[in-house]
Amino acid sequence: MRTKVAIIGAGPAGLLLGQLLHRQGIDNVIVERRSGDYVLGRIRAGVLEQGMVDLLREAGVDQRMQQEGIVHDGFELALDQRRVRVDLAGLTGGRTVMIYGQTEVTRDLMAAREAAGATTLYEADNVALHDLDTERPRVTFEKDGERCQLECDYVAGCDGYHGMSRRSIPEDRLKTFERVYPFGWLGMLSETPPVHEELIYASHARGFALCSMRSRTRSRYYLQVPATETVEAWSDDRFWTELAARLPEDIAQALVTGPSIEKSIAPLRSFVVEPMQYGRLFLAGDAAHIVPPTGAKGLNLAASDVHTLYRLLTGVYQEGRTDLIERYSETCLRRVWKAERFSWWMTANLHRFSDDDDFDRRLQQAELDYCTGSRAGLATIAENYVGLPYESLE
Amino acid sequence: MRTKVAIIGAGPAGLLLGQLLHRQGIDNVIVERRSGDYVLGRIRAGVLEQGMVDLLREAGVDQRMQQEGIVHDGFELALDQRRVRVDLAGLTGGRTVMIYGQTEVTRDLMAAREAAGATTLYEADNVALHDLDTERPRVTFEKDGERCQLECDYVAGCDGYHGMSRRSIPEDRLKTFERVYPFGWLGMLSETPPVHEELIYASHARGFALCSMRSRTRSRYYLQVPATETVEAWSDDRFWTELAARLPEDIAQALVTGPSIEKSIAPLRSFVVEPMQYGRLFLAGDAAHIVPPTGAKGLNLAASDVHTLYRLLTGVYQEGRTDLIERYSETCLRRVWKAERFSWWMTANLHRFSDDDDFDRRLQQAELDYCTGSRAGLATIAENYVGLPYESLE
Repeated sequence: MRTKVAIIGAGPAGLLLGQLLHRQGIDNVIVERRSGDYVLGRIRAGVLEQGMVDLLREAGVDQRMQQEGIVHDGFELALDQRRVRVDLAGLTGGRTVMIYGQTEVTRDLMAAREAAGATTLYEADNVALHDLDTERPRVTFEKDGERCQLECDYVAGCDGYHGMSRRSIPEDRLKTFERVYPFGWLGMLSETPPVHEELIYASHARGFALCSMRSRTRSRYYLQVPATETVEAWSDDRFWTELAARLPEDIAQALVTGPSIEKSIAPLRSFVVEPMQYGRLFLAGDAAHIVPPTGAKGLNLAASDVHTLYRLLTGVYQEGRTDLIERYSETCLRRVWKAERFSWWMTANLHRFSDDDDFDRRLQQAELDYCTGSRAGLATIAENYVGLPYESLE
Repeated sequence: MRTKVAIIGAGPAGLLLGQLLHRQGIDNVIVERRSGDYVLGRIRAGVLEQGMVDLLREAGVDQRMQQEGIVHDGFELALDQRRVRVDLAGLTGGRTVMIYGQTEVTRDLMAAREAAGATTLYEADNVALHDLDTERPRVTFEKDGERCQLECDYVAGCDGYHGMSRRSIPEDRLKTFERVYPFGWLGMLSETPPVHEELIYASHARGFALCSMRSRTRSRYYLQVPATETVEAWSDDRFWTELAARLPEDIAQALVTGPSIEKSIAPLRSFVVEPMQYGRLFLAGDAAHIVPPTGAKGLNLAASDVHTLYRLLTGVYQEGRTDLIERYSETCLRRVWKAERFSWWMTANLHRFSDDDDFDRRLQQAELDYCTGSRAGLATIAENYVGLPYESLE
């Protein structure tokens, strides 16, 4: 089997890249270790930056999102009882975010790929990458008990933090940057109307909480919990009671509770590898970097990597610009690090740290006090939240 | 001896408060442990915020400053070889800073106080405060071998970090917040023209450097050095060579070197006590808080404390508003913590830390990359640098 671009991983990054390339007539094959249903079962982010919305439009998969997604032109910070609205549109010259679940994005991309007749090989076992530092890289795997080989020009590693793409790069060629936070997020999905029409990021003495949503009838709430916490310790009742305790009173009183559909705990981590390319392998999204979820940058950062790789590969196949391909990593990393910075900032300033020395706690209060009291301060939050501009290649 | 307000310390904070009160007809006496010449011999800050300039005008001591001071409407960040101008006026709607040495401010205030015939008792030994939690506090001291007592309504503690005012408050009534940085600033004063018409804050792999000035013919340069460093290790030649190595090449080539007038090493520290008042004692300036010098907030923060205390005492004596006096500490601390935040931010992001883990170093680069590439980011630097608005009392 031969293709131009082999894409490892059928999550939103791999599917989006595949669809964008397909529309430019650039043949590609996606190889995915799991089944399509498994991929769809993962509950993840739901806040899309304008740049990602534009990219989905460019990929021709924005119809349902435009109908069912909810445009948000602001969000709220709740600092104990004090509520501060971050007017995204007003502070950024009209930019907004789109509320539309990652699961839905994935579903739309899968449907588009199926309609286009492009190949996705699900449930591929023992995927391995070979000859990455040559002009003829290969992907091998087992499918339905048979050994298969996919020859290609380039490999896109879109298989996430636990995937094998990153691990296919010799260890001595990668530098790892990491920060682990001493808490996790306990997330709960419920078929209840969201407590507020906009997202609320709450910093409270009891810990951080986030009121998010997937649609007008489906809520997604999060609580900061110790890293050692287990889901079993949290009944729905306990979750609702703790959530209410961390929100301003007027918001807490408006909470509509109901049974959970899903509950899970995710650790918070900052992680980056440099460089994001090795020979003809390009890492995109979680395969190369993880952000803590505060600020909703994970999926969006994957989309900006895909944007960069898509532009580069289009340049290669349509204009013969193979010279630019070496710039993939440095181009991505400029934006990656700014998003890592913002995600770290949101995390560090909205959560409570058990080992806060008092000076750090006062700095945190001063940071929020300054930023929420200054138009320039609010504008820095807003422009990062809606997404910084994509970096240019030149 | 009796007065309305006893002021401890004849540095710029005490002198400015004394002058402002005097012009409102509020009798005050300054008690200073050192001689006037000693006070004038201290080499300190030289960048005055607009708010402090306005306050000096209100005190009637701005004539020489207006003639000899230099208005700066911007400064530069030098990030290795890259130079970024922070357009203070353009980013803040026209606000600027004034370059005028603390020594000159002190000299002007001393002259005004002498002309006004107000009392300053220099070389007062064994100063002690009594009955602070009553309506008749007292200051005792020895002057020319005689024991003296000064009765008053209020005491202003303007005697700096090492002064006795703060230590006169029962320990269990104060909470201390502190951060010590693992480096100091080696400062050198020289009778040479400044290398650039604006200040340059340089972040370099060899460490931080600052090109400042006191006038058009007198330069003040600083180098980040280990906290354990001694002045004796630094000949003038070594200083100039190291300074040049930390500046962008075009700046380094323009350096005019010459013999030093003064060289000293100052540790970098963040320090705040809460509250800033106890009974009828009010702490102002370094007596209550220290900032690292990056961002030039120390003297300016003392001026904003003085502004608040001056307004409160004027309210007491002219309108009988004794109720507002309890708000001194909380009013000051709102602005103090924002200035502590900015000074910490400038320090943390422009210096090199020997124990930088790599993630922190990348965050630092991302912070500077983001801020210098965003108008909102630059505006946050600019508005803090020219000075945030004074907090209102109500």
